[in-house]
Amino acid sequence: MALLSDLGTEIVVPVCAVIGIIFSLVQWFFVSRVKVSADRAADAVSRNGKNGCGDYLIEEEEGINDHSVVAKCAEIQNAISEGGCFSACSLKNDKVPLGGTDVISGFTGATSFLFTEYQYVGIFMVAFAILIFLFLGSVEGFSTSFRPCTYDQEKLCKPALATAIFSTVSFLLGAITSVVSGFLGMKIATYANARTTLEARKGVGKAFIVAFRSGAVMGFLLAANGLLVLYITLNLFKIYYGDDWEGLFEAITGYGLGGSSMALFGRVGGGIYTKAADVGADLVGKVERNIPEDDPRNPAVIADNVGDNVGDIAGMGSDLFGSYAEASCAALVVASISSFGIAHDFTGMCYPLLISSMGILVCLITTLFATDFFEIKAVKEIEPALKNQLIISTILMTVGIGIVTWVCLPSSFTIFNFGVQKDVKNWQLFLCVCVGLWAGLIIGFVTEYYTSNAYSPVQDVADSCRTGAATNVIFGLALGYKSVIIPIFAIAVSIFVSFTFAAMYGIAVAALGMLSTIATGLAIDAYGPISDNAGGIAEMAGMSHRIRERTDALDAAGNTTAAIGKGFAIGSAALVSLALFGAFVSRAGISSVDVLTPKVFIGLLVGAMLPYWFSAMTMKSVGSAALKMVEEVRRQFNTIPGLMEGIAKPDYATCVKISTDASIKEMIPPGALVMLTPLIVGTFFGVETLSGVLAGSLVSGVQIAISASNTGGAWDNAKKYIEAGASEHAKSLGPKGSDPHKAAVIGDTIGDPLKDTSGPSLNILIKLMAVESLVFAPFFAIHGGLLFKLF
Amino acid sequence: MALLSDLGTEIVVPVCAVIGIIFSLVQWFFVSRVKVSADRAADAVSRNGKNGCGDYLIEEEEGINDHSVVAKCAEIQNAISEGGCFSACSLKNDKVPLGGTDVISGFTGATSFLFTEYQYVGIFMVAFAILIFLFLGSVEGFSTSFRPCTYDQEKLCKPALATAIFSTVSFLLGAITSVVSGFLGMKIATYANARTTLEARKGVGKAFIVAFRSGAVMGFLLAANGLLVLYITLNLFKIYYGDDWEGLFEAITGYGLGGSSMALFGRVGGGIYTKAADVGADLVGKVERNIPEDDPRNPAVIADNVGDNVGDIAGMGSDLFGSYAEASCAALVVASISSFGIAHDFTGMCYPLLISSMGILVCLITTLFATDFFEIKAVKEIEPALKNQLIISTILMTVGIGIVTWVCLPSSFTIFNFGVQKDVKNWQLFLCVCVGLWAGLIIGFVTEYYTSNAYSPVQDVADSCRTGAATNVIFGLALGYKSVIIPIFAIAVSIFVSFTFAAMYGIAVAALGMLSTIATGLAIDAYGPISDNAGGIAEMAGMSHRIRERTDALDAAGNTTAAIGKGFAIGSAALVSLALFGAFVSRAGISSVDVLTPKVFIGLLVGAMLPYWFSAMTMKSVGSAALKMVEEVRRQFNTIPGLMEGIAKPDYATCVKISTDASIKEMIPPGALVMLTPLIVGTFFGVETLSGVLAGSLVSGVQIAISASNTGGAWDNAKKYIEAGASEHAKSLGPKGSDPHKAAVIGDTIGDPLKDTSGPSLNILIKLMAVESLVFAPFFAIHGGLLFKLF
Repeated sequence: MALLSDLGTEIVVPVCAVIGIIFSLVQWFFVSRVKVSADRAADAVSRNGKNGCGDYLIEEEEGINDHSVVAKCAEIQNAISEGGCFSACSLKNDKVPLGGTDVISGFTGATSFLFTEYQYVGIFMVAFAILIFLFLGSVEGFSTSFRPCTYDQEKLCKPALATAIFSTVSFLLGAITSVVSGFLGMKIATYANARTTLEARKGVGKAFIVAFRSGAVMGFLLAANGLLVLYITLNLFKIYYGDDWEGLFEAITGYGLGGSSMALFGRVGGGIYTKAADVGADLVGKVERNIPEDDPRNPAVIADNVGDNVGDIAGMGSDLFGSYAEASCAALVVASISSFGIAHDFTGMCYPLLISSMGILVCLITTLFATDFFEIKAVKEIEPALKNQLIISTILMTVGIGIVTWVCLPSSFTIFNFGVQKDVKNWQLFLCVCVGLWAGLIIGFVTEYYTSNAYSPVQDVADSCRTGAATNVIFGLALGYKSVIIPIFAIAVSIFVSFTFAAMYGIAVAALGMLSTIATGLAIDAYGPISDNAGGIAEMAGMSHRIRERTDALDAAGNTTAAIGKGFAIGSAALVSLALFGAFVSRAGISSVDVLTPKVFIGLLVGAMLPYWFSAMTMKSVGSAALKMVEEVRRQFNTIPGLMEGIAKPDYATCVKISTDASIKEMIPPGALVMLTPLIVGTFFGVETLSGVLAGSLVSGVQIAISASNTGGAWDNAKKYIEAGASEHAKSLGPKGSDPHKAAVIGDTIGDPLKDTSGPSLNILIKLMAVESLVFAPFFAIHGGLLFKLF
Repeated sequence: MALLSDLGTEIVVPVCAVIGIIFSLVQWFFVSRVKVSADRAADAVSRNGKNGCGDYLIEEEEGINDHSVVAKCAEIQNAISEGGCFSACSLKNDKVPLGGTDVISGFTGATSFLFTEYQYVGIFMVAFAILIFLFLGSVEGFSTSFRPCTYDQEKLCKPALATAIFSTVSFLLGAITSVVSGFLGMKIATYANARTTLEARKGVGKAFIVAFRSGAVMGFLLAANGLLVLYITLNLFKIYYGDDWEGLFEAITGYGLGGSSMALFGRVGGGIYTKAADVGADLVGKVERNIPEDDPRNPAVIADNVGDNVGDIAGMGSDLFGSYAEASCAALVVASISSFGIAHDFTGMCYPLLISSMGILVCLITTLFATDFFEIKAVKEIEPALKNQLIISTILMTVGIGIVTWVCLPSSFTIFNFGVQKDVKNWQLFLCVCVGLWAGLIIGFVTEYYTSNAYSPVQDVADSCRTGAATNVIFGLALGYKSVIIPIFAIAVSIFVSFTFAAMYGIAVAALGMLSTIATGLAIDAYGPISDNAGGIAEMAGMSHRIRERTDALDAAGNTTAAIGKGFAIGSAALVSLALFGAFVSRAGISSVDVLTPKVFIGLLVGAMLPYWFSAMTMKSVGSAALKMVEEVRRQFNTIPGLMEGIAKPDYATCVKISTDASIKEMIPPGALVMLTPLIVGTFFGVETLSGVLAGSLVSGVQIAISASNTGGAWDNAKKYIEAGASEHAKSLGPKGSDPHKAAVIGDTIGDPLKDTSGPSLNILIKLMAVESLVFAPFFAIHGGLLFKLF
C-alpha cells in the first residue's frame, strides 16, 4: 500500500543512521584540526616546568608566547577531563604549608567520575535487569509453552518467559547505549573546550564554529547511534519473534526503560555534582572574596568545570537519548496492535524510525547553515544564528515529515484506541507529527522570552535586585510560575489535536515530531557548556580580557539556548510520558481511567505529590553538598597563606572529592523513589491506582519542571545582565560587587539546583515511571493490586 | 427511622447556634473588662498632649504612669483600627520639614480599608449576581412553567427561573455573611490587641487568656453565625420549594459560592496589603537600618499592623467560613438526591448541620480547658496549651460525631453515586466523618513539625543560614516540598476511606468532620495575629522589654498555630473541593471522568497549571507593592531629618496608601482568573473539560499551597530561632544583625508572600472553581461546550 517497500525501509533507516555518524565524524575532524598538540605542550613544558607541567603566573598575558598558552590550555583541559596534573603545577609557587601530599596526589576528572558513577549504576542495572526478568517471567509462571495473544486470542504468541528474556536484553542495551551516549558527549566536550578557547584568539566567529561543530558531533552521534542500535535490536529480535509482533514490540520497550533509567542517574548524579561545586565556588569566591568566576585561586573551580561536563553534557545526552528511545518505543508498541501490526506492514510499523531518519538528514542540512553557509562576524550575531537553527530545522522538518508520511503510509489505516480500532487518514498523522514539532518551537521561543535578558521579564527581575535578594527571589519565582502558562497551552493543544486524530499513537508521533530535530537541539544544547568551559579555561590560563569577553558572549547565548533545550526536553517528556501512559493503559487492558473512582483519584493526588518529594530530595542534596563545599573553600582561603595573592595553590582535590562523594551517595534515594514507586503501586494497589499516579505526576511534574528551569535561567541571566551593563538601566544596577549585583548572585545561586538538578530531573521522573509501568504492565495486569485483593 | 424527630432537628440546630453566639458574647464580656478606657485616655491626653493626643518619647519606660501607657495603647489601637490620629501625634517632636500637612491629614486604618475593599467587591458581587441570574435563568429560557425533575422524571419540579432567583439570593446572603464574618473578626482583633498588651504587664498567663478569649469570640461568632444563616435560609427557601428538595438544595449552593468568592477577594486583597507592608517594613527597617520590628520610627509599621488584621484575621475568617459553607452545601446537594432527599427525611438531610451544631458544643467545652480549667503560668506552657486544644476538641468531637450519627441517622440508607444509589450503614458514615477529623489533626501536627523551631527541620534551615541567604532559600524550598508528603497521604487515606464507604457524600462529611472543630481552630488561628499586634503595640508604646518578651512568646506560639491553621484550611479545602467536584459531576449528569479522553486530559493539564498562574500574579503583586514600599520607606529615612533619632515623625499615611492602592488594584486580575475560568471552560469546552480542570487544579494546587505555607512558616521560625538564641546552636548563629541572621531575614521576607498571600489563596482557588462549577452546572450541562458543538 505504501510507496516505500519493506526492503526499502530496511535499507533507508540504517543508511540515514550511518550518514549521521559519518557527518559527525567529519565535524569531529574539523574540530581536531585546531591543535592542542601534546608534542608542543610537552615541548613547552620541558622548557618551562620542572615537574612536567607549565609554570606561569595567572596575570601573564597571552599572545607573545603562543606555545605556552597552548600548553597551558592543554593542561587545564586534561585536568578537567582526566584530573591530576593541574593541581600540582599550575601555579608558580608550590610552597604549600598544609596538605602538600594531598595536593600533589591529584584528583579525579570528568572521565574518572563518570567511571565511578557507572560502577555504582552498573550494580543497579544488573539488579534491576534481574528484577525485570523475575517479574515478567513470573507472569506465566516461567512457562515455556506458547500462549494465546493478548489482543488476538485465536493466535498463539511467544511465551511470557521469552518476553522476560528479551525485555531484559533490550533494557541492558538501552542502558549501555545511554551510558555510551553520555560518555561520548563528555569526551567530545572536554576535547572541544580548550580548542574553543584557542580559537577565540582568532575571533568570535572561529570560536563559535568550533563550539558549535563539537555540539554537532555529539548531537549527530547520539541521534544516529540511538536509531541504529534500536534498528539492529529490532531486526535481531525479529529473528526469534517472527510474526509475533505483539511480543516483539513489547520486548523492545525495555530499550526505552534502560535508556531512561541511566538518564535518571546521570541527570541526578551529574546535577548534584555540578551544582554543589558551582554553588560552593560562587558563594565564597564571587560573593565573599570578590574574585571572578573561574578564577584559578578558587579551590572549587576545577570541580565546577568538571561538573559542567558530567552534569550538563553527559546528563543531558542521556536524558534526550532516553526521550527519543521512549517515544519510539511508545509509538511502536501502539502501532503493533494497530493495523500496521495486525497486517504486518513493516514500513508502516517503522514510520517512527523513518521520521527520525529524516530528522538526521534535515539536521545535517540545518547544521551547514551555521557552519558553512553563513559566518558569524560579531557577538550580536551568535544568538540569532542559534535561534535560526531551530527555525530552519523546524521548517525543513515539516517538509520532511510530509515526504515520509506520503511515502511510507497508506492513505488510511486503523489505530488501537483503548479497546477499539479507530480510522486514521495519513494527512491526519502528518498533522499529529507537525503539531508536536511546532509546539516544540513555540515552547522554545517562550522559554527564550522568559529567560533571555533581551526582554522585559528578566530585566524586571534584575530591577528588583535594587531592593535586595528577597524581592529578586520573589520576582524570580513569580516569573517561573508565569512562564508555565503558554507552554502548557501549547502542549495541551498538541495533545488535543493528536489525541483526537490518532489516539495515543498520535501523541507518540507528536512527541517524535518534537524530538525529530534532536540532533540540532543537542548541538545547540551542548554548545552552551562547551563555551562555559572555554571561558573557564581562558580565565585559568590567564588569557587576556579580550578573549574572556569573547567566550563570555558565546556563553551568554549558550545560557539561553540551554534554557530552550530544557524547554524542549520538558515538552517532549510530557508528550512521551503521555504516550507511554497510553501504551501502558492499553497493555494493562484498562479501557478507562475514571477520576471518579477512589482508586484512581488517590493515585492522581499522590502522583501529583511525587515531583515535590523528588525535588525536596535533590534540592536538599545540592544544599548539603554545597554547604560542605562552602566550608571547605572558606577553610582553604583562611588557612592557606598566599592563596588570595595567587602565590599558593589551592587544594582542588578535596573539592572534587566532596562533589564526587555527594553525588554518588545522594543520587540513590531520589533514584530509588522513582524506580520503586511504579513497582510498589502496581504490585500492591493495581493498575488503576498506578494510572492515577502516572497522570498525576505528569500534570504536576511538567509545571514544576518548566517553572524551575525558567526561574533558574532568568536569575542567571539577570545576573549576567547586570554584569554586562549593556544598557543605561543595567548600568544603574551594576557594576560587579554592587548591592544589586550581590542580590542577583544570590538569586543565581538559588536557581542553580532548580534549573540544573531538580528541574531537568523531573522530565525523567515522569517519563521513567511511565515506561517502567509499561514494561511491567503484563505483571501488574495479572498479579497486581495485592492489597485490594486481600481485603 | 432516626431517634431525633424532624421537629427535634428544627429546634436543636438553631439552639446550638444561639448557644455559640451567647458563648461568644460572654467571652467578649470578659475581654472587655480589661479597660482601655476612652475617658482615661482622653484624660491623659488632655493633660499631656496639645492636639488631642499623647506626647511621649518612645524611650520612656512604662510602669510609673499607668494612665499614660493605657492612653498610648488606646491611641495606637485606634490608629490601627480607625486610622488618622497616631501619625499626627505619637512622637514628641513635630517639626517635620516635609509632608507636614500630609502627615496630619491622617490615613485609613483597618476599618476604612475594609470598607474601601468591600465597595469594590460589592460592585463585583452585584455584577456576578446578575450573571448567575442570567446564566441559570437561561437554562430553560426564563420559562416560568414547571419542568420534570432531573433525577426523577415523573415528578414536576420548580422552574429553572426559580432556581436562578433563589441561587442569586443565596449567593448574596453567603457573600454578605462572609463579609460580616471577616469584618467582625477584624473588629474583635483590633479590640483585643491593646488589651492583650496591657494584660501582659500583669503576666504572660493573663495576656494569653485575653488573646485566646478574643480568638474564641471570633471563632464562635463565625461558626454559629454561618450555621444560623444557612439554617434560616434553608427554612425560608423551603416555604417556596416545599417538596422539591432537589431544587431547594441546588439553590442553596449559591450560599457557598457567595461565601467563597468574598473570601477570595479578602484573602488576596488582604494578603497583598499585609505582605507589601511587612516586606517593605522588614527590608528597610530590619535589614538596612537595623531597628527592631514594629519600631515606631519605621514609616511602614502602621500599615504592617493594619495588614495583620485585614489579611490574617478578616481574610482567614472569610476563608474558613467559605470552606464551612461549601462543605455543608456539597453534603446537602448530594444528600438531596440520595435516600434522605427522596424519602424527605429532614433529620437525615440535616446531618451535616447537626454535626456542625455538635461541633459548637464540643468547642465550647474545649475552650474552657484553656481559659478556666487550667492556667498558663510560664512561657513554655503556651504552645502545649494551644496544641492541647486541638487534641481535646478532636477527642471530644469523635464522641460527639458518634452521638449525632446514632441519634440522627437510620441504620441504613442509600447515597447517590454517579448515577446509581449505593447502600451505606450509619457506622460507615461515622467513620467517614472521623477520618476527616483525625486527618485534620495529623496534618496539623505534621505542619507543626515542619514549621516549629523546636524540631530539626527548621533548625537545619536556620543552620544553613551560616553559608548565606542562598543556601537558606534552597533548604527552605526543599523543606516545603518535603512537608507535602505526609499531609497528602493523610488526605489520600481519608478520601479513599470516605469515598469507598459513601461516595461523594462521604467526602463531603469528611470535610465537615475536619471543619467541625472550626470554632476552636479559628480561635487559635486568630490568637496569632492578635498577639503579633499586641507585641507591635508594646513596641510602639515604648513599653519595657519585659512586656515585649512576653508578647513575643505569645507571638512565637501563634506563628506555629497559624501554620497549623493553614494546614487545616488546605486539608479541608482539598476535601471540600473534591466533594463539590463530585456534586458538580452528579449535577452535570456525567457518570465518569475518563483521563483517557483528550477533552478531560487537556483539562487536567491546564487545571494543574492554574495554581501557578494564580501564584505568579499574587507574588508579583506583593513584589511590586513591596518594591514601592521599600523605596518610600528609604525615601523617608533619607529625607526626613531626625527620623532615625526618633525626634521626627514618619509619614505613615503614604505607606498605608501604597498598601491600600496595591491591594485594591492587584486583587482584580487573580480574582478574575479564578472566577472566569469555570465560566469560560464550561461554556466553550463543556463539562468534561471542566471536570478535568477541577481535578487538575485540585491535585496540583493542594501541593503548592501546603509547600508554600510551610516554607514560609519555616523561614519565619528559623529567623525567630536565631533571634531567640535559646540553645547553644542558636546562639552560634546569632545574635540579631549577624550574617546568618541577615540571611534568615531574607528567607523570612521571601516566605511572607508565599505563606500569607499566594499559599492560602490557593485553597480558595480550588474550592471556588468547584463551587462555581456546581452552581452553573445546570447551564453548562445544557448550553456548555459551544466550541465542540461548533466543530
